[in-house]
Amino acid sequence: MNMQDELQKIAGEIRDFIAADTFPASISPEYLKDAVTDYPLRGGKRLRPALVLWSCGLLGGDIAKAFPAAAAVEIYHNWTLVHDDIIDDDDYRRGQPTTHCNLGKYAAAVLPGAGREFGRNFAILAGDIQQGWAANTLLKSEEYGVSPAVVLAMSRRLHEQLNCELISGEALDVEFAARDIASVSVAEVEKMLYLKTGALLRFCVEAGASIALNDSSYSDPRLLKLAEFAAQAGVAFQLRDDWLGIFGDAEKLGKPIGADLTERKPTVMLLKAFELLSPSGADELRNLLGSSITPEIIRRARYLLSESGAADYASGRAAELSAQARENLESFPDNCYRKLLSDLLEYLTARSV
Amino acid sequence: MNMQDELQKIAGEIRDFIAADTFPASISPEYLKDAVTDYPLRGGKRLRPALVLWSCGLLGGDIAKAFPAAAAVEIYHNWTLVHDDIIDDDDYRRGQPTTHCNLGKYAAAVLPGAGREFGRNFAILAGDIQQGWAANTLLKSEEYGVSPAVVLAMSRRLHEQLNCELISGEALDVEFAARDIASVSVAEVEKMLYLKTGALLRFCVEAGASIALNDSSYSDPRLLKLAEFAAQAGVAFQLRDDWLGIFGDAEKLGKPIGADLTERKPTVMLLKAFELLSPSGADELRNLLGSSITPEIIRRARYLLSESGAADYASGRAAELSAQARENLESFPDNCYRKLLSDLLEYLTARSV
Repeated sequence: MNMQDELQKIAGEIRDFIAADTFPASISPEYLKDAVTDYPLRGGKRLRPALVLWSCGLLGGDIAKAFPAAAAVEIYHNWTLVHDDIIDDDDYRRGQPTTHCNLGKYAAAVLPGAGREFGRNFAILAGDIQQGWAANTLLKSEEYGVSPAVVLAMSRRLHEQLNCELISGEALDVEFAARDIASVSVAEVEKMLYLKTGALLRFCVEAGASIALNDSSYSDPRLLKLAEFAAQAGVAFQLRDDWLGIFGDAEKLGKPIGADLTERKPTVMLLKAFELLSPSGADELRNLLGSSITPEIIRRARYLLSESGAADYASGRAAELSAQARENLESFPDNCYRKLLSDLLEYLTARSV
Repeated sequence: MNMQDELQKIAGEIRDFIAADTFPASISPEYLKDAVTDYPLRGGKRLRPALVLWSCGLLGGDIAKAFPAAAAVEIYHNWTLVHDDIIDDDDYRRGQPTTHCNLGKYAAAVLPGAGREFGRNFAILAGDIQQGWAANTLLKSEEYGVSPAVVLAMSRRLHEQLNCELISGEALDVEFAARDIASVSVAEVEKMLYLKTGALLRFCVEAGASIALNDSSYSDPRLLKLAEFAAQAGVAFQLRDDWLGIFGDAEKLGKPIGADLTERKPTVMLLKAFELLSPSGADELRNLLGSSITPEIIRRARYLLSESGAADYASGRAAELSAQARENLESFPDNCYRKLLSDLLEYLTARSV
């Protein structure tokens, strides 16, 4: 099976599943309902649902039972995006206006007394409903033949672990950007990357595994090994993402290079460079932060990050985590789902786009 | 049993239950964890937990089993307050600074790069974690002897019905204030009052009833009757609240009279007055809206609302709903819990404070 073909098939199935759900039907006003369904139906690669389904398949489970969980993680991912986009004050998501921008424009056109915060406020509410929608979709697993004990265990995990971890990750990401960069450590950032990205990937594979194994204790060694795989893949993906943000190709990526420098984002690579550079080199790098990006700034930043060894450090750490993830995956008997997960790992951690 | 004594006892028990919960332990950074536990531990009358426990007791259930559900509705109520306080830009809640104000002050003191939105953004995240905390606490009912089928049914209800209804109610409340007041109808406002307040009270009694009756279908006639009771009590409470906001005693209420006029809030009473007043009376009332409150404005508003019959209409509608709620309650066999619920209804709908 070709991974991209399978991903595309899953994307269609998940979209249909979400579109057919009557959950949003009773939401009013109408434009709030539209805001709730917008991101979940906007598309994206649906990597997280694929992780749920393929983990279930890897362990010999019936992937049809894992469909609600697969749709749930996608809706869950999307509510976090709606709130992140408010927090980061972003205008675009997947090439279209963000939820708070859409709602703000609607209000400006139609509601004479709406203040400037209206779009943000309604987007808070849209994300709040989506969080409930995600939890509800997971509970529907019971209708698809998952035992009540596993449904309850997955739901507990969603709230107790994923929710606390992922939101803590988002909070730390915002906090680091507001702190003096010299006070942030490489270890703190790597932990944040796990929380913000790895925790959800981990939840996905654990859900698939617990369904396949009918394991409500979350203690089967196979489930634990898959959890490690996902956490490692998540951090490796983020390290690669940060590297591409400086050394990637703007045209291939479809976004400008160097935004992390303008935002003074304390990435692993940047913090490592401050550790490794001479005082004068560190001063020069520090002076490149916070300004609008020019080709000369990119050239000097690339030079300092490469010469210091920081770029190699970040790439090397990503490669190390990716290799560990691969080792964990290869401990499972080979089947078509192991091949798909292996291709997905490659795609996440060795991509140039 | 004296209702106020019982309420006080429950308040202490719920506080202890929430304080002992390890759910928030893994949240970082530390000040986000503090924000998550702040409102749930700040107190309040804990009317909603009492509704869960007393409804369970009314139907002969073991109220010890209903404790997680009682704590869950309190945490649930509090996350909605955290987000409402952001949306309404309120500075105080129960006499102390709101969550977003506290977080904003913390950031201003400690984080050099935190922008003015920091407090609001972190309060969004605090409420997001609290929503998960509430759902998780409800799932813990299983550990207290509630059947998995009822736990799953209550949780579905939490997301599918309560979440959509309550958040739609908050959204409509915000929307109405932004619309031309002439375009808002009495029926729309009463529907919003049910959604914003009645829906959660209804969830409370349904949870208590489903635990007592071990009814995962939510179809027992006793459960349905209690649901009506709670929805009616919720709307009657809100109508009374709006009446007190104009005709109440500022000293007894502990808040200024007339804020609804300044905010041009389309209450049932105000909309009814516009229906009933002569064109010149309606013009005068319209001109009183939106300005800072003076004793003269209050005097004229009271006069117009009384003379038009709008004040009596709102009081009468509250009394009617309250009587219907009482009738529903009195269809149950008498026991100490029926007495407590009856006293609570009186307290909610006939209070002067």
